[in-house]
Amino acid sequence: MYQLVLVRHGQSTWNKENRFTGWKDVPLSERGLDEAKKAGQMLKAKGIEFDTVFTSVLRRAIITSNNILEEMDLSWLPVQRNYRLNERHYGGLQGLDKSETAAKHGEEQVLIWRRSFDTPPPAMSVDDPEHPCNDPRYAGLDARALPNAESLKCTIDRVLPYWHDAIAPALKAGKKPLVVAHGNSLRALVKYLENYSDEAIMGINIPTGMPLLYTLDENFQVVSSEYVGDPEEVAKLMAEVAAQGKAK
Amino acid sequence: MYQLVLVRHGQSTWNKENRFTGWKDVPLSERGLDEAKKAGQMLKAKGIEFDTVFTSVLRRAIITSNNILEEMDLSWLPVQRNYRLNERHYGGLQGLDKSETAAKHGEEQVLIWRRSFDTPPPAMSVDDPEHPCNDPRYAGLDARALPNAESLKCTIDRVLPYWHDAIAPALKAGKKPLVVAHGNSLRALVKYLENYSDEAIMGINIPTGMPLLYTLDENFQVVSSEYVGDPEEVAKLMAEVAAQGKAK
Repeated sequence: MYQLVLVRHGQSTWNKENRFTGWKDVPLSERGLDEAKKAGQMLKAKGIEFDTVFTSVLRRAIITSNNILEEMDLSWLPVQRNYRLNERHYGGLQGLDKSETAAKHGEEQVLIWRRSFDTPPPAMSVDDPEHPCNDPRYAGLDARALPNAESLKCTIDRVLPYWHDAIAPALKAGKKPLVVAHGNSLRALVKYLENYSDEAIMGINIPTGMPLLYTLDENFQVVSSEYVGDPEEVAKLMAEVAAQGKAK
Repeated sequence: MYQLVLVRHGQSTWNKENRFTGWKDVPLSERGLDEAKKAGQMLKAKGIEFDTVFTSVLRRAIITSNNILEEMDLSWLPVQRNYRLNERHYGGLQGLDKSETAAKHGEEQVLIWRRSFDTPPPAMSVDDPEHPCNDPRYAGLDARALPNAESLKCTIDRVLPYWHDAIAPALKAGKKPLVVAHGNSLRALVKYLENYSDEAIMGINIPTGMPLLYTLDENFQVVSSEYVGDPEEVAKLMAEVAAQGKAK
């Protein structure tokens, strides 16, 4: 039996402003920092143990994991960070809020992007200073690995190789990993593990800072899954994410 | 030419109380956290770049590095943590302050320990819950790698293999590492790099939270070394460490 815990980073400053964040490296809000600490306290109170950590290369996930580990007296754990756990890349929408997006692209188009599993948003130009090919953290990669814009499908295609090459092998090696990532990169893992349809995963909203605890059998089939935290709080946060009307 | 930056963690709660800390995993004090942030700001202001990080497995070094990286927008850097960068293990003295040590062991003996390069303090029992063999972070190691007590000489013997196997190869591979560690594990590196005598290194006091920037030639010979920070502040902090009358 494997133990896998997934945590979506705490609220970021752009979650708060309801902006498309994607690969933009925004910090946690005050509330997000509190959520991270609280997640660590809840995990510790429940007696959950970790011995390795995976995060994206975005600070909202990294700072969340740092704070979870600090609360659990586990700052010393080895950590691996990888761009494959990054949030969905929102391309030309990154930085826009809901009304700016509607003003720029029209309500109808926004609805198509929101409802589609595999239609990517408009591409970000490689000349844009915000494009990942201009960011030193991705300088070690083949530039063609870097997205200009991603649908949820593209995100899943990017995330799953990391499951197969890093997370699943850690589980098979007897590790208990903590994975701290993003709304859509975690959707990729949840879709895979739960065998959700393309349509069903669109309706799954992962709340910020709420540890999702999976027990998997030796074939990585889900035996149980539960949020570690007060059920009412979980329901409230899920409704809040759904009400934002878009996946962050 | 290689760039190497060494940082001693910010002030810990036990530095503040003037207790032998060693491998005890105490947190940073408020001042220590400020020192860490300030170190990051100074390094950023000076335009110093890093692409990889080495720390001990003790939280005062880890939290210091986390805060330096956060201030430099470099939280995404890969980090390696290793017990070889830990502080000197103070054995049976760990947890005692200056007057408690004198009361327990006598002023004369304390003076011998303080002045000696290679006399270890009394050993910590393996039955002591504080002994590293009872700490899960060292569970992956051969227990005989774990010290009961260390002289400065023992500490140097422990640290240098990590220089040779991890830090020096990173430099040779073109990396610019940030090393965040402890008063005595950094003394080990400084003694090696500067070719200090056993006696001379006893007189070297590395201030907390002050980045020490080395430029090394291709044979790891020192071309230049300087503290990144206000020279007056550096002098004040060095005097403060020296006045504590013992290496932490």
